[in-house]
Amino acid sequence: MTDVRDLRGVVPYLPTPLTREGTVDEAALKRLVNHLIAEGVHGLTPLGSTGEFAYLDFAAKERVVAATVEAAKGRVPVIAGVAATTTLDAVRQAKRWAELGADGILAVLEAYFPLNDQNVIDYFTAIADATDLPVTLYTNPNFQRVDLSLQVIERLSHHPRIVFLKDASTNTGRLMSIMGMTEGRLGIFAASSHITAAVMLIGGRGWLAGPSCLIPRQSVRLFELCEAGDWSSAMELQRELWAVNQVFARFNLAGAIKAGLKLQGFDCGDPAPPQAALSPEAVETLRDVLKRVGAL
Amino acid sequence: MTDVRDLRGVVPYLPTPLTREGTVDEAALKRLVNHLIAEGVHGLTPLGSTGEFAYLDFAAKERVVAATVEAAKGRVPVIAGVAATTTLDAVRQAKRWAELGADGILAVLEAYFPLNDQNVIDYFTAIADATDLPVTLYTNPNFQRVDLSLQVIERLSHHPRIVFLKDASTNTGRLMSIMGMTEGRLGIFAASSHITAAVMLIGGRGWLAGPSCLIPRQSVRLFELCEAGDWSSAMELQRELWAVNQVFARFNLAGAIKAGLKLQGFDCGDPAPPQAALSPEAVETLRDVLKRVGAL
Amino acid sequence: MTDVRDLRGVVPYLPTPLTREGTVDEAALKRLVNHLIAEGVHGLTPLGSTGEFAYLDFAAKERVVAATVEAAKGRVPVIAGVAATTTLDAVRQAKRWAELGADGILAVLEAYFPLNDQNVIDYFTAIADATDLPVTLYTNPNFQRVDLSLQVIERLSHHPRIVFLKDASTNTGRLMSIMGMTEGRLGIFAASSHITAAVMLIGGRGWLAGPSCLIPRQSVRLFELCEAGDWSSAMELQRELWAVNQVFARFNLAGAIKAGLKLQGFDCGDPAPPQAALSPEAVETLRDVLKRVGAL
Amino acid sequence: MTDVRDLRGVVPYLPTPLTREGTVDEAALKRLVNHLIAEGVHGLTPLGSTGEFAYLDFAAKERVVAATVEAAKGRVPVIAGVAATTTLDAVRQAKRWAELGADGILAVLEAYFPLNDQNVIDYFTAIADATDLPVTLYTNPNFQRVDLSLQVIERLSHHPRIVFLKDASTNTGRLMSIMGMTEGRLGIFAASSHITAAVMLIGGRGWLAGPSCLIPRQSVRLFELCEAGDWSSAMELQRELWAVNQVFARFNLAGAIKAGLKLQGFDCGDPAPPQAALSPEAVETLRDVLKRVGAL
Repeated sequence: MTDVRDLRGVVPYLPTPLTREGTVDEAALKRLVNHLIAEGVHGLTPLGSTGEFAYLDFAAKERVVAATVEAAKGRVPVIAGVAATTTLDAVRQAKRWAELGADGILAVLEAYFPLNDQNVIDYFTAIADATDLPVTLYTNPNFQRVDLSLQVIERLSHHPRIVFLKDASTNTGRLMSIMGMTEGRLGIFAASSHITAAVMLIGGRGWLAGPSCLIPRQSVRLFELCEAGDWSSAMELQRELWAVNQVFARFNLAGAIKAGLKLQGFDCGDPAPPQAALSPEAVETLRDVLKRVGAL
Repeated sequence: MTDVRDLRGVVPYLPTPLTREGTVDEAALKRLVNHLIAEGVHGLTPLGSTGEFAYLDFAAKERVVAATVEAAKGRVPVIAGVAATTTLDAVRQAKRWAELGADGILAVLEAYFPLNDQNVIDYFTAIADATDLPVTLYTNPNFQRVDLSLQVIERLSHHPRIVFLKDASTNTGRLMSIMGMTEGRLGIFAASSHITAAVMLIGGRGWLAGPSCLIPRQSVRLFELCEAGDWSSAMELQRELWAVNQVFARFNLAGAIKAGLKLQGFDCGDPAPPQAALSPEAVETLRDVLKRVGAL
Repeated sequence: MTDVRDLRGVVPYLPTPLTREGTVDEAALKRLVNHLIAEGVHGLTPLGSTGEFAYLDFAAKERVVAATVEAAKGRVPVIAGVAATTTLDAVRQAKRWAELGADGILAVLEAYFPLNDQNVIDYFTAIADATDLPVTLYTNPNFQRVDLSLQVIERLSHHPRIVFLKDASTNTGRLMSIMGMTEGRLGIFAASSHITAAVMLIGGRGWLAGPSCLIPRQSVRLFELCEAGDWSSAMELQRELWAVNQVFARFNLAGAIKAGLKLQGFDCGDPAPPQAALSPEAVETLRDVLKRVGAL
Repeated sequence: MTDVRDLRGVVPYLPTPLTREGTVDEAALKRLVNHLIAEGVHGLTPLGSTGEFAYLDFAAKERVVAATVEAAKGRVPVIAGVAATTTLDAVRQAKRWAELGADGILAVLEAYFPLNDQNVIDYFTAIADATDLPVTLYTNPNFQRVDLSLQVIERLSHHPRIVFLKDASTNTGRLMSIMGMTEGRLGIFAASSHITAAVMLIGGRGWLAGPSCLIPRQSVRLFELCEAGDWSSAMELQRELWAVNQVFARFNLAGAIKAGLKLQGFDCGDPAPPQAALSPEAVETLRDVLKRVGAL
């Protein structure tokens, strides 16, 4: 398996399959993991936004990480999400995910009251200090109450185990500023809110994103075209695939992934209530888009 | 004890005393409860914003509710906070708080992904259906990702067990609109972001607020002046006490409460990291304000 | 006539009557001025938000101020709006409105690029230095790109000719903070976004607001009840009148005023395109509300 | 001269040189125009954001357009900015700029009160109907109160004279969505908030931007590398030039352009007060950046 620090490519954000009773459906998760690896993805991320980390307790998260690691069998690295409001809880998750065999940590800061830059730095540093695993910072200004300022990112980039950043803003220029500022210390991954080919052009390493669960093969092909510097073929494919990103921006993220996977024969249940499953009309829109890109 | 449905007055939002190891300091909590009841408050709310609900797991929350109920000994009603991202977790909390002896529920919706009005209604209805306890809706647009629209509030106000609303916006006119719209079905409590005397003037029943922990006697006096219709004396006192609200708006809420209580001899520890304790300068500002209103 | 510095009471924000060709209908404006004075209002404000200042050039504004002063005939003070993006334009307006006989200035800062606090202070100071007229600061975070911070307001309150503030936020507590901070140097007027009785309770001098054009008599009555300290009758009337504020918050402000005045027999035309006149359904909603409060 | 409809490339947003008395310095403007054309730019845009349109009256704007057209002498197309709050004013500007010899219109909607989609469509359609000139839509969510929704853009793209869009958001994916949705009917230009090479990659035609005034030669070189599909050299240059964009995002836009031009020997005065000139420290930062990219 690739050393996580050398990771490049397509790393799907896995959904968390849930039963009607609200428990983790580990069998469905393992089936999905096998499918995605077979399709050629370069890594897997359980417990990102798409994985509904905000809707799961510690025990459920444990089952998700364990099942993913078990199914991946070392074929691709597993970057497991740590997300908490307290440093204590975050450190506990990081240590446990390491024990369970995760290859890297995706670190998220949940917040209720405002925090200053030093508080934010303390939180992420504690996670990076907790284990030997390389850490990916995850910043998502749409859903999270604390955004990581450029100054905070610059300071964190000096930590020997903070090696990647995934930015889920829509501001592609911000990625360029971060690249310039961190001078190679931080590898940058895109999210589905960015045009992934554009992020590859400016020096990105790939993307950590929910939609790649539905279009793994197409995503890998796009990544390979970018790596080969065949930008004109890459853009042709990117234009086609952009419709999938647009659908995700429009509907509930977890709902859209789960609805799409159901269409593809991978039943992962519905998003945790009070979130609702996609409406029948939304499912039809999604079906059309998936058909158009050859994913159905 | 007053029937909760008849509750009017000053209902402090309790902090959650924490040890350095991050466990609930039940002795400190009970001491504070006894002090506040002795000062004349009309009810108690564990696990509101000030109670750092967003930083505690289920077991810690359980200890908070149990300790509060035990210390209150039925002298004043205990309205315990239920806050979750999933309906399942919220219902579980509500049922457990009822078993533990809470007299009412303060219901909060945490969210990560956006929700539509029907999702929001489903969530609060499930809480109100879970037990026999009367429910207070809590809406705080500053910290929570989902705000309750007027339409949602109107619909929820028809539920026989949804009886109160606490609004922590700064928009006092919004309270007037809600009062008009719910035609007496929903009693309104202010938060520290509102001028409480003004909310009393327009028909409020009192306030559920963190600062009342630091100025319980003064708060009760202000409430009584409003109830007596002595608006000119009420405003004189309100003007004085407003400095306390301003300090709370400026500093971290849990940090300010805990720092103030320490000054008053009630050591409740610090807010859960990565939140920081108040800086020494902020403590001095707080000390001055508390002295000026006779609370030190 | 009252010295403007002693002004208290109801000061309607006048609409700017426009013909289909986009010119100022001075006859309609004068008729409205006479009507409002007959109904007992305490002052008049041409060229506030409601007066569509943002849609008029210098010459049109000149005609509005001249016509208002001419019709008012010194019976009530005229506080004329000065609004500009440049200091030069603002000073030119202030000097010209003074020549035309205005009794005071309502000062508004329009902005495109962000400004720092010192820029904002420079702008308002230049207006206050330009003439002998007393100045009312107007801050409206909903429509204006620059909000006045508490620090800026405190500093401006020391200018001998900056005497009043009208705040059109919905944050009534902010008014209380400003009152405390400016220690009597700045008289506070409410806007229709506040509960005016509540602002009177905390020490306001009255209100500068568009809806008072439609309910001048009722507004004066409410003011008088507040002044007399008859808070219970005041609140009874306030509750009734709040429906009018709610309608204004829902529809385009200039459109709602103009539609309401048309129903009352004062045809002031439509708002300047591309703004649209109220839809027929909105007009019916407005008609119902005006009937209910005895204004039709 | 290129037909405007075939325009591709670097089109600087011109500053408006102002004297201390606030009048347009036409000589300085003409000198700048000659310089930029000599450096190889493909078009010129007077009265964009950088041109401080929001700080100029009709007569001043007239002088700006006339001077630009006169100096350009048909060597490159002049796309003149039309910006207004009212349709009447916008149409008057458009007709006058056409008479003065402008080759195209950059259309901006200023707003005070909120507008619905139909109002926005009416405004831009009126501008496009007013003359024979091709129209570029300009949307800037940072400074303008009305953003153009995708639906509005799609509908406007069917107008035979609405041919280009310049988007000054930071959301590069939005440009991709617009390209997909308008199926070639609308040519897309970037702004300095986007990575221009990335916009070229996804199918952009060039950029309309203030910073190009300071680095015209470098900008043209970047454009040519993109056109040639030499993405690796393009990105090398883009990385270097990004520092200029970052400076502009940090300081007042008009202030930064004017300070930079002064360093290059083109004195265009200061931005219109209450905007301030760049601080000496900011000027030094700008000087360093310009030196680093060979523009000083």
